[in-house]
Amino acid sequence: MASISTIFSKSTPFLSQPLTKSHNSAVITTVSFPTNSQARRRNHRINSALIEPDGGKLVELVVPEPKRREKKHEAADLPKVRLTTIDLQWMHVLSEGWASPLRGFMRESEFLQTLHFNSLRLDDGSIVNMSVPIVLAIDDEQKALIGESKQVALVDSENNPIAVLNDVEIYKHPKEERIARTWGTTAPGLPYVEEAIMNAGNWLIGGDLEVLEPVKYNDGLDRFRLSPSELRNELEKRGADAVFAFQLRNPVHNGHALLMTDTRRRLLEMGYKNPILLLHPLGGFTKADDVPLSWRMKQHEKVLEDGVLHPETTVVSIFPSPMLYAGPTEVQWHAKARINAGANFYIVGRDPAGMGHPVEKRDLYDADHGKKVLSMAPGLERLNILPFRVAAYDKTQGKMAFFDPSRAQDFLFISGTKMRGLAKNKESPPDGFMCPGGWKVLVDYYDSLTLTGNNRLQEKVPV
Amino acid sequence: MASISTIFSKSTPFLSQPLTKSHNSAVITTVSFPTNSQARRRNHRINSALIEPDGGKLVELVVPEPKRREKKHEAADLPKVRLTTIDLQWMHVLSEGWASPLRGFMRESEFLQTLHFNSLRLDDGSIVNMSVPIVLAIDDEQKALIGESKQVALVDSENNPIAVLNDVEIYKHPKEERIARTWGTTAPGLPYVEEAIMNAGNWLIGGDLEVLEPVKYNDGLDRFRLSPSELRNELEKRGADAVFAFQLRNPVHNGHALLMTDTRRRLLEMGYKNPILLLHPLGGFTKADDVPLSWRMKQHEKVLEDGVLHPETTVVSIFPSPMLYAGPTEVQWHAKARINAGANFYIVGRDPAGMGHPVEKRDLYDADHGKKVLSMAPGLERLNILPFRVAAYDKTQGKMAFFDPSRAQDFLFISGTKMRGLAKNKESPPDGFMCPGGWKVLVDYYDSLTLTGNNRLQEKVPV
Repeated sequence: MASISTIFSKSTPFLSQPLTKSHNSAVITTVSFPTNSQARRRNHRINSALIEPDGGKLVELVVPEPKRREKKHEAADLPKVRLTTIDLQWMHVLSEGWASPLRGFMRESEFLQTLHFNSLRLDDGSIVNMSVPIVLAIDDEQKALIGESKQVALVDSENNPIAVLNDVEIYKHPKEERIARTWGTTAPGLPYVEEAIMNAGNWLIGGDLEVLEPVKYNDGLDRFRLSPSELRNELEKRGADAVFAFQLRNPVHNGHALLMTDTRRRLLEMGYKNPILLLHPLGGFTKADDVPLSWRMKQHEKVLEDGVLHPETTVVSIFPSPMLYAGPTEVQWHAKARINAGANFYIVGRDPAGMGHPVEKRDLYDADHGKKVLSMAPGLERLNILPFRVAAYDKTQGKMAFFDPSRAQDFLFISGTKMRGLAKNKESPPDGFMCPGGWKVLVDYYDSLTLTGNNRLQEKVPV
Repeated sequence: MASISTIFSKSTPFLSQPLTKSHNSAVITTVSFPTNSQARRRNHRINSALIEPDGGKLVELVVPEPKRREKKHEAADLPKVRLTTIDLQWMHVLSEGWASPLRGFMRESEFLQTLHFNSLRLDDGSIVNMSVPIVLAIDDEQKALIGESKQVALVDSENNPIAVLNDVEIYKHPKEERIARTWGTTAPGLPYVEEAIMNAGNWLIGGDLEVLEPVKYNDGLDRFRLSPSELRNELEKRGADAVFAFQLRNPVHNGHALLMTDTRRRLLEMGYKNPILLLHPLGGFTKADDVPLSWRMKQHEKVLEDGVLHPETTVVSIFPSPMLYAGPTEVQWHAKARINAGANFYIVGRDPAGMGHPVEKRDLYDADHGKKVLSMAPGLERLNILPFRVAAYDKTQGKMAFFDPSRAQDFLFISGTKMRGLAKNKESPPDGFMCPGGWKVLVDYYDSLTLTGNNRLQEKVPV
């Protein structure tokens, strides 16, 4: 019989399945990379096409040009639902297929499967991962206005129709349960919850989405907003035979860079000829004390300019999702969306998508749960999970290096809080922590906050 | 491509998969039963053996007689963990294989999969359902006493060793997250949480369980406590070709009886020759205002004596699990455990395992979520889900009947609260609501409460 007790052997604690199980999947489960024999077993994949999107085909929900005019006319007569900034970000996510095979805001069946199983079962019985609810809330008044209509128009803040939702289903919005099952807490102070759930309506509306125009923000960064389809084209153009994704919402320091270059080196050792890094900062909602997207993008550009990462083997692009700070639940979404963009390797750090507990003096999530849950998640079996090796500032070398516990005293850990504190006070981090151009961007950002007297610069919203 | 939007068509809203998908599975998804053509498609199953346990083989963890003496000696020298009453109930559950293929209290990998995915992936890649954590909490002091030992003895309230836990793993007990993800709320006042989690230790200990003796309670009810293996023998002896399980924690009224006899009639219509009802009251922890097990068993006996249900086609047995009142999460456990006992049909009611919200004036769960979640749950594809048809007191017929919304005014709904109120006040329900012998048991129970001045009689614990 199948023995549960051996799912996780002592030596490979985060192995969701035997490496030999599927010819198309391998889960790398420890901080070290596969041995050469494992790499050889996997050699047949090298030079193969990009990983398939979830559900087999990338979903794209923007109405094709010739039909837009007609569809806009149609939308003008429909009941209207006005979208918030975060709703718009999710609409963007859906429209480009990051959540493939999802075809619109979730109906109740999808919502419940997401809450309870972090996955969706498709018609053919196969499973795709889907760990965070992508839902649209409406209030009693909006519900009454929609009445029995099976179609609604989604409109922007100026009431312009930007999408149509078809064959709609309206169902109750169980806020407390949604929050508890997504975040594993209902403590007040969760940034996404405060921003997007607490004051949202008591109903959810799901349906099939048709978006009237590609989503643009006109903030100078649209050129970085490649859709999964555009990313796949770019990765194919570059002849990638392995794509490793790095999700981030913070400035890149040399520890990150070390990790990314080391990953590439090891993929080359495994026999891949052209591994490409997808450096993929999150572009949607973030909490007030995170560095805003525009400044992070400046910082990332400096890092590439300074040669810390190589432009030929790195694609920098913006991931349009809002940030939930939902730890082990959210990291699955971060990984799943990158499969749809063509990534077959995913780098996961300590406490991914985590934050401090909003009320208690501790981290909200166990720092190891993210990578464990990710390695076991249904629907992610095809993705190679690469747990983060901890990097720290090595005082003996004067640079960021992989932490060596046998000489712990030689290392200095510089947390995000510490880094922000230094930049705010215009102090310098140790040489080799971050390239000087990148550091200057950070200092400039905190300067700009002082100048505007604002805790946070206004960010652009989709137009 | 597989289209998510059609997982749930309008006409069969709770269909987790096409009925034709697998020859071994069919999900009945509406209040009506399958049509004759569906029944014919399924005819090949009739007269087949009982449904396989999860994982293929029933797990039984009681040490065989010849080795008990030796094992008890071994246990005497091990670090000790004292079990609470609820711990003992879970040990009982595990020892008999209700949670097959689980072989003991959960290690962290199993705990995390349960919390996040309500299911476990086995070595062969297959999935079994497992929606509630079956874990053993220890405190700092116990953890220190265990030290590096890989074995511990589990002891009863008098320090007698009753089991050994092998190859143990100790990990953090994230109480808030466990509660939030299991109950979908962290509101104070959840009965199981107050009883078994709030004051439990900050660590969990998992491992492979060996139980030194079969669990007995010596309360006169042990003859009803058939293990899954014993139930399978009994069901085979009776030549069951369909087994439909009915989970309950309340007295049986004629509405329940109607439902059960109607289910049998329909299974016969479908072509089954000998459908057997497993009437399966829950025997572990229940909340203070539920009727205690001993009184419920007396009441169930009366119902059988009075001929409301037929003894030849009904097996009455006690399900040893504690009750969590965790709604859609728990109903999966209730169903999964019955697969292990040989049931291939499961009757699910309105708001299964639900209760009032402990703080707000509303039900904790949406009344329809239980059956929806159950129909979509990973690992339960083999089980036929039979949603409850609502029965109510039909004043025109003077008996319980299926509710007919076209003449709603003819029906009287008698809630559990109403029923308890009537019995407490020695008032009679309408004729035909419950057989008189069964009703008398209820009245006697509330009498006994008044006599003892106790809100709740002491219940027996496992010995």
